[in-house]
Amino acid sequence: MKLLEEKILRDGKLGEGDVLKVDSFLNHQIDVAFLSEVGKEFHRLYAGEKVDKILTIEASGIGVACLTAEQFGCPVVFAKKTKTNNIYADVYRADVYSYTHDRAYEIVVSKEFLHAGERILIIDDFLAKGSALTALLKLIRSAGAVAVGAGIVIEKAFQPGRELLEKEGLRIESLARIASMSVADGITFC
Amino acid sequence: MKLLEEKILRDGKLGEGDVLKVDSFLNHQIDVAFLSEVGKEFHRLYAGEKVDKILTIEASGIGVACLTAEQFGCPVVFAKKTKTNNIYADVYRADVYSYTHDRAYEIVVSKEFLHAGERILIIDDFLAKGSALTALLKLIRSAGAVAVGAGIVIEKAFQPGRELLEKEGLRIESLARIASMSVADGITFC
Repeated sequence: MKLLEEKILRDGKLGEGDVLKVDSFLNHQIDVAFLSEVGKEFHRLYAGEKVDKILTIEASGIGVACLTAEQFGCPVVFAKKTKTNNIYADVYRADVYSYTHDRAYEIVVSKEFLHAGERILIIDDFLAKGSALTALLKLIRSAGAVAVGAGIVIEKAFQPGRELLEKEGLRIESLARIASMSVADGITFC
Repeated sequence: MKLLEEKILRDGKLGEGDVLKVDSFLNHQIDVAFLSEVGKEFHRLYAGEKVDKILTIEASGIGVACLTAEQFGCPVVFAKKTKTNNIYADVYRADVYSYTHDRAYEIVVSKEFLHAGERILIIDDFLAKGSALTALLKLIRSAGAVAVGAGIVIEKAFQPGRELLEKEGLRIESLARIASMSVADGITFC
């Protein structure tokens, strides 16, 4: 998505250690009009698919998930992060390892909101090593639901997330695929 | 908002200790089509006001804030929760006490995304004792921005949040005002 690549080049900030900050439109401030266009693009890419529900993860996935769900006319479910085991009953659980924060956490979804046979589209802001997406896929499969695919805003294509998830049979559509990035040389796209 | 009251009566679940769970459309699963209507209602109520930005708090405020921002044609900024002091630089800070979880946490907004003179509408899912809203108001005023008002989905009108915030000069518009609620007697609206 050309508009997204231009926005990343204009508004994204590179920091030490492969960190790309897109706080100004995706992760802290949300450019709602722009993310509506992102939602339309996900809808175009998955137009042939029946989607019953969109699944994302709190907090930064929620905005783009809602604006995408408007296009599909379906609800959003967001997985909740929890550091304490077993405080929620009747949930599907999966573990995520955050490389950004160097710690593990658990995500949960209530069994009320994921059902066998439902067709679920995953929407998330980033794909890098694939830990969050793998966990979301596990939640879907625990429920006996079907993962239609994933819609990712920004993929760090130089990291192994896509390969890992495609091996699991997940279709992945990323709107911007970063081939390389560094403070010295800037960002290049695939 | 009659539709919202009906939805709360139909889908809300009452638990011990004044807990109203609206997980099926607001806090865990998000009924995007319905919350778009909620957004339109906030837009109608604040139609006379110039709104530059919507401010909310992660995670459950983000969905309704985005769907409201579409009506206003403005961006959303969500305050981030943090348990550790001083890990973020260049932020406005305020403390929130969560009665639900019986602990305090800090919320922060980057100084990049709140500016002097900006007209900010607060959107949040609940108003009860007013701790979160008071903290959001503090962030706005720390930046020298102007709080246009607050749009609240569900107000527990039997708790003192509104009184506290109106004393601070904040306009509050709640779409459902609960006069009383209990497992035994159900929910009544103002």
